[in-house]
Amino acid sequence: MPDHLTELRANHPIIHCITNYVTANDCANLLLACGASPMMADAPEETAEIVAASHALVLNLGTLSSSRLAAMHAAGITAQQRGIPIVLDPVGVGASAFRRDAAAALLAETAFTAIRGNLSEIRYLSGAANPDAGVDARAEDTASACDCAKSLALRTNAIVIVTGAEDIVTDGRATYRIRGGHTVMRQITGAGCMLSALTGAFLAADRSLGGCAAAVCAMNRAGEAAAARMTASDGNASCRNYLIDAMFRMTDRDISEEMNRANLT
Amino acid sequence: MPDHLTELRANHPIIHCITNYVTANDCANLLLACGASPMMADAPEETAEIVAASHALVLNLGTLSSSRLAAMHAAGITAQQRGIPIVLDPVGVGASAFRRDAAAALLAETAFTAIRGNLSEIRYLSGAANPDAGVDARAEDTASACDCAKSLALRTNAIVIVTGAEDIVTDGRATYRIRGGHTVMRQITGAGCMLSALTGAFLAADRSLGGCAAAVCAMNRAGEAAAARMTASDGNASCRNYLIDAMFRMTDRDISEEMNRANLT
Amino acid sequence: MPDHLTELRANHPIIHCITNYVTANDCANLLLACGASPMMADAPEETAEIVAASHALVLNLGTLSSSRLAAMHAAGITAQQRGIPIVLDPVGVGASAFRRDAAAALLAETAFTAIRGNLSEIRYLSGAANPDAGVDARAEDTASACDCAKSLALRTNAIVIVTGAEDIVTDGRATYRIRGGHTVMRQITGAGCMLSALTGAFLAADRSLGGCAAAVCAMNRAGEAAAARMTASDGNASCRNYLIDAMFRMTDRDISEEMNRANLT
Repeated sequence: MPDHLTELRANHPIIHCITNYVTANDCANLLLACGASPMMADAPEETAEIVAASHALVLNLGTLSSSRLAAMHAAGITAQQRGIPIVLDPVGVGASAFRRDAAAALLAETAFTAIRGNLSEIRYLSGAANPDAGVDARAEDTASACDCAKSLALRTNAIVIVTGAEDIVTDGRATYRIRGGHTVMRQITGAGCMLSALTGAFLAADRSLGGCAAAVCAMNRAGEAAAARMTASDGNASCRNYLIDAMFRMTDRDISEEMNRANLT
Repeated sequence: MPDHLTELRANHPIIHCITNYVTANDCANLLLACGASPMMADAPEETAEIVAASHALVLNLGTLSSSRLAAMHAAGITAQQRGIPIVLDPVGVGASAFRRDAAAALLAETAFTAIRGNLSEIRYLSGAANPDAGVDARAEDTASACDCAKSLALRTNAIVIVTGAEDIVTDGRATYRIRGGHTVMRQITGAGCMLSALTGAFLAADRSLGGCAAAVCAMNRAGEAAAARMTASDGNASCRNYLIDAMFRMTDRDISEEMNRANLT
Repeated sequence: MPDHLTELRANHPIIHCITNYVTANDCANLLLACGASPMMADAPEETAEIVAASHALVLNLGTLSSSRLAAMHAAGITAQQRGIPIVLDPVGVGASAFRRDAAAALLAETAFTAIRGNLSEIRYLSGAANPDAGVDARAEDTASACDCAKSLALRTNAIVIVTGAEDIVTDGRATYRIRGGHTVMRQITGAGCMLSALTGAFLAADRSLGGCAAAVCAMNRAGEAAAARMTASDGNASCRNYLIDAMFRMTDRDISEEMNRANLT
């Protein structure tokens, strides 16, 4: 397996994130922790130029605005022309027509390398969810997480990552099922956004299904380390810091251990 | 008294925040810490749809923009039609005509459930402050905090929360006076924003004067716990983390203890 | 030497920051830690009015938008008319035509009191860098950091601060060379933004070359304290907190010690 962190820490690839303002700081610090160079820029006037000098592009629909959406289109076109890997994080895609239309337009125009979301989001994009379900889409519905992910992967030709109690990483043919992390991660705002940014970094080093699975394993490992470090006084704020700290201290060996527990079918 | 945290942690109400980008992350983590689900969305295209699926709406005038203001109007109208509680945090309302006009327009159009600000802000909204005083409005001026708060509450039919050395929570008739918290909270950016977000969460569980007082008590308790946890090396950054951590660990009993020290007249 | 922190903590000058959303929270907490009052406001409708009541203005080009740029112009004109010190942080100025044009327009219109950037940014502004080099401008290129800084200072009549392994603070005639800080600061997002905000605060207390050098020394001291406090589990997230904490605990004596090690020529 490639030594992802070693490569990131040697080369500091630039990860251009067009992302929400709620978690941008955590995403930037997590990218620095893994060795990458975050570049947050979201003006339509400059994103095409900025992504052209970057090594991956991450589009995150949180706090979407019409301006940020225009910036995503401009950056997506350039990234695609230049063969730069592109990650989509469809935050809350079921929650509004604005986000649904934005995701549809981006998916129609851009060949994403990877799409990462929670089950509600991936179910919506896969077409399995009732569009009216919004943010309340239920995990227990008919289509299983795996079927949704595979279907979306085959339709978009993207690697699809669904995070939850079990994480799924699939290109529609081969599928990693990964158990790990810790439930406290659900109480940290931006844990998903951070994984999407990290996926961009890992794709800059290794554009493969295994690269995406390694990003998921790295995030889980960080979550486990963070949870293990928590004292009786600590809560989600300290845990967030510990999670980024754990990425800063992580080695490729740590990721390998986590990968060895993953199930590949 | 209702068990606010127990209810929040069972039901995870969605708190839609249209808020400033400086403290959005802390507000989101504090909401998660108390059991609520933060939803930060501020595009005028989607806020009406988003708030319709939410359980409270929090409008915060920090880093106000014309776009965010339009989003507030759209969300406010829908929230009001649907009976969703609405909190206004008039950050720096005296500081510019833009904010003064925004607050006036929102107050004219929206029936707020609660308004939370510091004394300068509440004084300005109550009409007691010279509009030219801006951010320099002085606490020692003629009208007392309590009179301002009651007057604003009666005029707007909102519960008014004034935070300071003594916190005031009033509907114009009954008034809680609450002492607690710690002075270090003044050196944490967003302590006020966090309380406003928390008030939204508590109102989702209990739309009463007591619910708002409980939110203030919870925040004070978190501040006390955070200050008590500080070491000789810690400053406002660690204290911010400890404050959110303390909310994560808080119980309804902690809030009850704090409420028992409050003065209700 | 003036007691900068003592003065800041006595007078709480308002530092109006028009800045990026990635690091705005850290900048606000750092300003509070040193005793200043942060005021983040970036709507073109209000920045002229807000800066008029402020004691320093900090313009930061990170996550630049056309709206934020218009706000910078409005604030810059007012600050200049009123003699309020103005700091420019040309984040990523080489990375896009949008930022290059923005910086050129601001420099043409505004007499900055100080300009703080890394070597790539200052080299670009000084005219020594190939505009095509973008974010990849190399530190080892022909013109030395010192020459670039002096040249830019003489051309703009601003104090120029270049941060790197050795920090340079110059007005083109006298030059401080300051060694300090810690390499881990490079892995904290916003370390540069925080120093620019801090420079605004120090200029509010002491508008001199020494005031800018003291801000650099304070930031270095905080970085050293933060690095010294790190445990084997800590990474860049905890270090960021420790850095702000260290500013909260810092004394003017700490800064004096650091200043005594600076080289003034």
